[in-house]
Amino acid sequence: MSVLTLVLAASAGAHATQQPQFRNPDNPNLADKGEGTYPIPYKKPVVKEVAEALHRIRTYLESTTPTRVIHKTTGATITDFKNPIKEAIFEPSKGDYGVMTYEMGLVHSGLLKARAATQDARFTAMTERHFRFFADTMPYFKAQEEQFHLERANSFSRFLDPRSLDDSGAMCAALIRARFAQVGPDLNHMIQVCGNWVSRQQFRLADGTLARKRPQAVSLWADDMYMGVPALAELGHLTGNVSYYDDAVRNVLQMSQYMFNSQNNLYTHGWNENNPDAPRFYWARANGWAVLAMSDLLDVLPKSHPGYSKVLAQLRASLKGIAEQQSGQGLWHQMIDRHDSYLETSASAMFVYVIAHAVNQGWISPSTWGSIAQAGWAGLSTRITSKGEVEGICVGTTFASDHAYYYHRPTSVEALHGYGPTLMAGAEIIKMMNNPAFNIEFKVRTYHYVPSDAAKTDYREHH
Amino acid sequence: MSVLTLVLAASAGAHATQQPQFRNPDNPNLADKGEGTYPIPYKKPVVKEVAEALHRIRTYLESTTPTRVIHKTTGATITDFKNPIKEAIFEPSKGDYGVMTYEMGLVHSGLLKARAATQDARFTAMTERHFRFFADTMPYFKAQEEQFHLERANSFSRFLDPRSLDDSGAMCAALIRARFAQVGPDLNHMIQVCGNWVSRQQFRLADGTLARKRPQAVSLWADDMYMGVPALAELGHLTGNVSYYDDAVRNVLQMSQYMFNSQNNLYTHGWNENNPDAPRFYWARANGWAVLAMSDLLDVLPKSHPGYSKVLAQLRASLKGIAEQQSGQGLWHQMIDRHDSYLETSASAMFVYVIAHAVNQGWISPSTWGSIAQAGWAGLSTRITSKGEVEGICVGTTFASDHAYYYHRPTSVEALHGYGPTLMAGAEIIKMMNNPAFNIEFKVRTYHYVPSDAAKTDYREHH
Amino acid sequence: MSVLTLVLAASAGAHATQQPQFRNPDNPNLADKGEGTYPIPYKKPVVKEVAEALHRIRTYLESTTPTRVIHKTTGATITDFKNPIKEAIFEPSKGDYGVMTYEMGLVHSGLLKARAATQDARFTAMTERHFRFFADTMPYFKAQEEQFHLERANSFSRFLDPRSLDDSGAMCAALIRARFAQVGPDLNHMIQVCGNWVSRQQFRLADGTLARKRPQAVSLWADDMYMGVPALAELGHLTGNVSYYDDAVRNVLQMSQYMFNSQNNLYTHGWNENNPDAPRFYWARANGWAVLAMSDLLDVLPKSHPGYSKVLAQLRASLKGIAEQQSGQGLWHQMIDRHDSYLETSASAMFVYVIAHAVNQGWISPSTWGSIAQAGWAGLSTRITSKGEVEGICVGTTFASDHAYYYHRPTSVEALHGYGPTLMAGAEIIKMMNNPAFNIEFKVRTYHYVPSDAAKTDYREHH
Repeated sequence: MSVLTLVLAASAGAHATQQPQFRNPDNPNLADKGEGTYPIPYKKPVVKEVAEALHRIRTYLESTTPTRVIHKTTGATITDFKNPIKEAIFEPSKGDYGVMTYEMGLVHSGLLKARAATQDARFTAMTERHFRFFADTMPYFKAQEEQFHLERANSFSRFLDPRSLDDSGAMCAALIRARFAQVGPDLNHMIQVCGNWVSRQQFRLADGTLARKRPQAVSLWADDMYMGVPALAELGHLTGNVSYYDDAVRNVLQMSQYMFNSQNNLYTHGWNENNPDAPRFYWARANGWAVLAMSDLLDVLPKSHPGYSKVLAQLRASLKGIAEQQSGQGLWHQMIDRHDSYLETSASAMFVYVIAHAVNQGWISPSTWGSIAQAGWAGLSTRITSKGEVEGICVGTTFASDHAYYYHRPTSVEALHGYGPTLMAGAEIIKMMNNPAFNIEFKVRTYHYVPSDAAKTDYREHH
Repeated sequence: MSVLTLVLAASAGAHATQQPQFRNPDNPNLADKGEGTYPIPYKKPVVKEVAEALHRIRTYLESTTPTRVIHKTTGATITDFKNPIKEAIFEPSKGDYGVMTYEMGLVHSGLLKARAATQDARFTAMTERHFRFFADTMPYFKAQEEQFHLERANSFSRFLDPRSLDDSGAMCAALIRARFAQVGPDLNHMIQVCGNWVSRQQFRLADGTLARKRPQAVSLWADDMYMGVPALAELGHLTGNVSYYDDAVRNVLQMSQYMFNSQNNLYTHGWNENNPDAPRFYWARANGWAVLAMSDLLDVLPKSHPGYSKVLAQLRASLKGIAEQQSGQGLWHQMIDRHDSYLETSASAMFVYVIAHAVNQGWISPSTWGSIAQAGWAGLSTRITSKGEVEGICVGTTFASDHAYYYHRPTSVEALHGYGPTLMAGAEIIKMMNNPAFNIEFKVRTYHYVPSDAAKTDYREHH
Repeated sequence: MSVLTLVLAASAGAHATQQPQFRNPDNPNLADKGEGTYPIPYKKPVVKEVAEALHRIRTYLESTTPTRVIHKTTGATITDFKNPIKEAIFEPSKGDYGVMTYEMGLVHSGLLKARAATQDARFTAMTERHFRFFADTMPYFKAQEEQFHLERANSFSRFLDPRSLDDSGAMCAALIRARFAQVGPDLNHMIQVCGNWVSRQQFRLADGTLARKRPQAVSLWADDMYMGVPALAELGHLTGNVSYYDDAVRNVLQMSQYMFNSQNNLYTHGWNENNPDAPRFYWARANGWAVLAMSDLLDVLPKSHPGYSKVLAQLRASLKGIAEQQSGQGLWHQMIDRHDSYLETSASAMFVYVIAHAVNQGWISPSTWGSIAQAGWAGLSTRITSKGEVEGICVGTTFASDHAYYYHRPTSVEALHGYGPTLMAGAEIIKMMNNPAFNIEFKVRTYHYVPSDAAKTDYREHH
């Protein structure tokens, strides 16, 4: 490690960008003394470049997520799905990217969005392959379970014996979205399993808030806004049963009452019933889960639903708190309010996606917000390597009780949490670049998203 | 670049002081283990040294602001002011310091203050020279314009065809102040032009707040508190017409309603009518413009005016928010609440000036505030080079919508914005050192500004 | 100084831990990619190791605090206590640790706590030796004073001619505690002297709040919560006279009204009557004094006292503000809300002690708070050297008026302020490790303090 690398790492956390200083190519005047340099590619996003970055990620994930059943010890491929053997497992991914994890649920949702934004069906080929694999192997692993009772060691356990929102919610939402998009086979039986868990079987507070029995006997996790709400919302979407929507809205509002601090407009990571007024930990990804959940809900919640305006108000308040914490490198910090903690990719990707999406949906103004999303993408784009890995993602993190833990969570390209959100972010940036509702004015060396239907801006006064 | 330099730059932004550690000479006990070292000359300001620093700046500006008309392409001096030619322009400054810019208006106001604080007429020689040049050349450029219609390319355009508060307000206030101080020729015709623009022609909100048509169709800039209010105040001062004062007060209070956050006592840079509840950007210089405007207004506003106490209360609230953000190096950060952004000179100079001035005027107590101004000057003094340049000044900066832009605005000794405020700050520090209203007690290794009329402090108890 | 050292110092203030990266030994799976590394020994505290650290400190202090009377110029030991001579003084400590200072009062309180936590009488041998020395030499120095009128130069001046809370309060509380613990000789005459000063002679505001005549004529110091309240509390404890308790409670509540900011739940360092709404300086140690004072008061205040619940509520609010500022290294910053100021040991030790004590006393939940105290100890333990010195302690610091001063206060192993609190913190951590009221669950790579009487946590769901 060179001295310079060390210094950069020291100054900005573990993930300081080590690229050469960047000059904005949108300003062609190389003699302009008013033009600075940036540690990120500060420029108007180029749709072709964004799409290429998304394809790199897609290609990388395709290559690292095998869909094969193998013999656990010999590694031999198993193709005989008639007679289950105890040693049969899903072939593990080299990158540790489990095909049935909640993180992979987000990847599929991201791939669906990338296809919708680009009309390029290559994005969902992986979704088709994975989901076909589920359809093909479920009977086999079900039989294996009946015969050998492997519990967690059964590769299909999340859908044979679901035990948590992590097992169910994110993949459930992805399965329903794929169904609407007519991607992959009919997986209604899987939707039943995960939908039941989220809506009826998960542990809850007496008031109906989705809860966990860890790390304290009765705990809430802001993460569970995402692990629960999008699945409930999509179940409402799929079935037309309004009680799913009611449950989704109730969870957004109640979780916010427990975990949202309206002084700084941020979510603390979690809440324990035995210490309700505890010191708070503003973990960035927890805020990401919260806004992603609200955004997903608003995508399908009928505007006539009495909770619509409340969820929208809560999303707007949260986004304001988040936006005001954005770093000078476009990304957000691991502890979102602690600017001496490292810049973290997965939360940043969720924020870029939700802000850009909210702009595109008209939930927030393009003015100000468009620039924030754009700067966020500039930062995010530096985290996507030439081979399609996404760097700087905080690994799986429990609801903890001290800053020493949170500050020092390692990052890894093997942490899948950031891949789905990065796909979503890029897809939404493409949509934002193509959005006719506003013009992106590059003026005085920066970007202004000006609503198309607004009065004209005027720079005649400017010297 | 040495490793040490790199490290210092990394730890404190682009402008980390690279001087050797400083030991306070006011503590003669070199064995005192309780005395630390500082990255700035932490000591009681020495009037002679402050005055010398101001003269260095003055000399530098004299040498870099020619007042000559030349032929644009040949560079030949033009002295025949009878027959206008199309190619005639003001000779450009090597340092890019335009003689008719708003930044130069601040320089003149600073020079006038330096003369008042030191009784040294050398400070206003430059003001006399520039203003005489205006008087001498206005008819020529007016005739040039009538003949050739050069618009912005006419060197005198700001006063022949004003289009913005930037064209008018700061220079207008300076012209009136020079008139009161009997410095330079009669420029009443110029005062008419700029006064008219500020008071009657500038675009406003329906409620009368001074506004701009950029970056959105209807935008407010905190900068415009300074670009508007001091001119209005001085017009009231000059004419005795109370409606100017009313307008100045109204603008202070209304702009504060739109842009002041009473939770942290800071101003956001601007406000867009199409996104009134947007994420906020606490750019330091915007806060400088705001407090400088209020201070200038209070200097001339009659105490009997119904707005006096409101403006004073708003100034006090703003200064409290600003003071609490002061860095350990006495200066303030580019984004005033972001202590990982660089230390910026122009805003720091405005804060030092306004705080010291408010102490000297009795608007705030010398207790606490005197020390804050003194520490600010200690930081500021490190930015004045031996040749009179002022370093670390953020270049011209538009009202933008993302932190990536603000964090990475370059600094330049050619950014004139900080020169006037630094002259003001030094002048006011000299007045503070000579102010009989308080005693500066150096006790227990630091400074305490104790009101002269207060009960005595007592250190008899101290071991 | 190596490059790495420089870089670490630059990134995290003057006291960045220069140890190699630490891996938690409680996680035996060396291949666990979810386990990070830490700059501090992030692990469950080991009672034996904590006790050893405390013994190192004790041994170091024993060796550096002579209790001998010597001739000031010759250095000869004086044993004839019949005939006082002018040149007789307490033998100075090599480490500058005065045996009669308020800081040493905290050391004795810490040693008493260490003995109580460990049942190891070696901890209070030093207290016995010092207090025996006081008993033996007081008549001699009293006679010296009567004959030579040395005032502050008399080594026993704090108890012959007390002049301040610093002279009296902390040692007074320690004397009473030692008396209750039956450690050392009868020093009732000294308790009378210091008790009188604190309760009756110290300068106060008209409303009874303990005050000082510096740095302004009428000033409050948050430090004086500790310099006054524990002595008053122990006087109530010793005499049963409720008026001492009333005075202690009143001072906690009134000082909080003047100096506590309920927006961020922090104390500003002090308050001046002549500038009551001044900018605030959140010096960490001032916050340490405040919570230590409240904790000490609650230890002896009868629960039936009408102030009990108010003091407890104020302690809880303060601890919440403090906890939320804890750094990623477990320690707290010199300016507690300024994460670019250095990590300071004495305040950190006070916080670790009070939080762990409040958990052990049941004033706050073990949930969340236990982990915070544990992480704090992990940081603190890195500051105790192999020879028992405590590093990173801010030297004596006056109530000042600018951040430049506070940021650059030097640290020294000769600043005794941190030794007593570190002893207290270690003692309380030992009690916390032995506390049967909760189980410390090490799960998912971090620590969860789960009340023993609570419902069971459940990780069955966890993949």
